[in-house]
Amino acid sequence: MPGPVLPGPGADARVLLGPGDDGAVLGVAGGRVVASTDVLVDGGHFRRDYSSGYDVGRKAAAQNLADIAAMGGRATALLVGLAAPDELAVSWVERLTDGLRDECAHVGASVVGGDVVRSPTLVIAVTALGELTERGPVTRSGARPGDLVGVVGRLGHAAAGLRLLRAGERAGELVDAHRRPEPPYERGPQLAVLGAHAMIDVSDGLLADVGHLATASGVGVDLDRAALRTLAAAGVTDEEMLAGGDDHALVAALPAGTAWPEWLTLVGRVGTALGVLVDGAEVAGAGGHEHFTGGSAATD
Amino acid sequence: MPGPVLPGPGADARVLLGPGDDGAVLGVAGGRVVASTDVLVDGGHFRRDYSSGYDVGRKAAAQNLADIAAMGGRATALLVGLAAPDELAVSWVERLTDGLRDECAHVGASVVGGDVVRSPTLVIAVTALGELTERGPVTRSGARPGDLVGVVGRLGHAAAGLRLLRAGERAGELVDAHRRPEPPYERGPQLAVLGAHAMIDVSDGLLADVGHLATASGVGVDLDRAALRTLAAAGVTDEEMLAGGDDHALVAALPAGTAWPEWLTLVGRVGTALGVLVDGAEVAGAGGHEHFTGGSAATD
Repeated sequence: MPGPVLPGPGADARVLLGPGDDGAVLGVAGGRVVASTDVLVDGGHFRRDYSSGYDVGRKAAAQNLADIAAMGGRATALLVGLAAPDELAVSWVERLTDGLRDECAHVGASVVGGDVVRSPTLVIAVTALGELTERGPVTRSGARPGDLVGVVGRLGHAAAGLRLLRAGERAGELVDAHRRPEPPYERGPQLAVLGAHAMIDVSDGLLADVGHLATASGVGVDLDRAALRTLAAAGVTDEEMLAGGDDHALVAALPAGTAWPEWLTLVGRVGTALGVLVDGAEVAGAGGHEHFTGGSAATD
Repeated sequence: MPGPVLPGPGADARVLLGPGDDGAVLGVAGGRVVASTDVLVDGGHFRRDYSSGYDVGRKAAAQNLADIAAMGGRATALLVGLAAPDELAVSWVERLTDGLRDECAHVGASVVGGDVVRSPTLVIAVTALGELTERGPVTRSGARPGDLVGVVGRLGHAAAGLRLLRAGERAGELVDAHRRPEPPYERGPQLAVLGAHAMIDVSDGLLADVGHLATASGVGVDLDRAALRTLAAAGVTDEEMLAGGDDHALVAALPAGTAWPEWLTLVGRVGTALGVLVDGAEVAGAGGHEHFTGGSAATD
C-alpha cells in the first residue's frame, strides 16, 4: 500500500493551506473558481507497460489542467484521489507524484490535497481548480455564425503514438506525445482575453470535440483539411489528425476581425448549417472513431 | 456503461456554470476556497449488498461535506468521478446520483461536475469545495494546553451498524447510521465562529482522530468516557464508540471560558503530556482498531 499523503504544495502564495488537514485552502482572485474533474483507469486511459508512473502523473495532470485552460482559466491547484492495488510499487506512486508536480509546475499550480485508498484496480481521479481572467469563462456554447475557428496545439500526435506503441515502438516524438501531452495551457486565458466566443480542448478527437462545441452553440463548423494538416506531424494519419484525442489542443471560435495572433492556426469557419464538415463535406465516420475516444480508450 | 453526465446544479446562486462544459464555475465569497477529496472503493468503503446506490451516494457526499465542515467551512459544490464496470445497472448510478444530490441539499451544495469512465472496479472519487467564515480555516494543529474538547454528533453508530449488517441484520437505526451518516454540518462553521482552536471530523475513529489532532497540535488530550457515552446509543459497544469511524462527528478544541453551546458535549481537556487518554489512562489498542479504520475498511 502506498503512503497516505500526496505531494505538498509548491511555493505558491495562493495555497493558503496545503495537504495534511481535512481540507486545503486556496486564495481565489476575482471571486470565482473554475473546477474540473477527470478519472483515469489502468489498462484504459493508460497502460503501465506503455507509460511510466512519471508519465501517467504528467498525463493525469495535463488532462485536467487543459480543461481549466479550455475555460479560459489559469489552473492553481490539483486534488488527487488514488485507488491503488496493494502490489503497486511505492516507487511507481512516487514517480506518479513527481509527474503530477512537474506538470503542475508548467502552469504554476500545486497539488494541494489527496486521498489514497486500496483497490483491485488502479484508478486516478484528479480535480483541477483555477482562476478566470476578467473575461470570465469561455464556454462551448457561444460560437456564432461568421466566427473564425482557430486551433493551437498538436493534432493526432497522441493517437499516432499509441498506434506506434501497439506496434512495439517504445521511443520517439509521437510515442512521447502519447505519454506526456503538451497542452498549450497559456493560450487558454489569452484566447479568453482575445474575445473567444467559445472554446474546447481536444480530448475526444477534433471532429468529436468541434461537434460538441457546434452542438452546444447551435451552429455548424466547416474545417480546412490543409490548415489542420499543419498541426499534425508527418507520421500522423489524416484519421488520427481528425479523430485522435488526448493532445489537448485548444479550439476556439473568435469573431471575424479579431487581431489574429501568429500562434493560432485558422482552421475553419462557423456557419448556420448544423454539423461538422471538412472542406465542405461530411467525413465518413466523423465522430465515430470510437477506438480513439476517451470513453472507449478504457477498453483498449 | 452508465450515462456520461452526473446531476445538474440545484438552484444555487453560487453555481455560475454547472455541468456540461470543460469545467464548472463557482462564485466564492471571501476570496478563499476550501477543498477536500475522498475516494470510495466497492467492497471496501461500501458493499452493494449492504447499501443501495442511493445510500452510497449519500455516504460519499457526506464524507466529503464533513471534511469541509471540519475546516469550519460551508460546502458549496461537489465534483464526482465515477469509475464503473459495464455491468453496473444504470438504475444504480441514477440512485447514486439521487443520493449525492440529496446529501448536498442538506448544506445547500450542488453537484457541479463529474466524469464517468469504465473500470473493472467501482470507484467513486468525490471532491468537495466550500467557503469559509471570516474566522478562516480551523486546522488540526491549533489546540493548546488548557483547551476544552467538545464533540457534536454520533460516536460508534456506523461501526455498530456494520457489525449488525455482518451479522445479517438489514434494518434499524444503527444499520441506517452505517448506510447514511448524518454529520452535524452546520456546527462546523458555528464552532469556527465560537473560536475553536482546532477541529477534525471523526472518520477513522475517535481515538485515532483525536490522536491526529493532538499530534498536529503537539499536545495531549484526556477524554471522559462517561461524557462520550452520552453520544453513543445503547447498542454501541465502548470499542465502537472509541474506535469506530464514519459517523463524522466533529471534535473541537475550544479555549476555556468559551460560551459553551448546549449542543456541544464537553468530553475532555487538552494537556501538555502527549497522547490520548481516556479517564487518565491509555486505552489498550487505542488507534489500533484497524478493522474499523477507513484505510483497512478497503479490505473488508
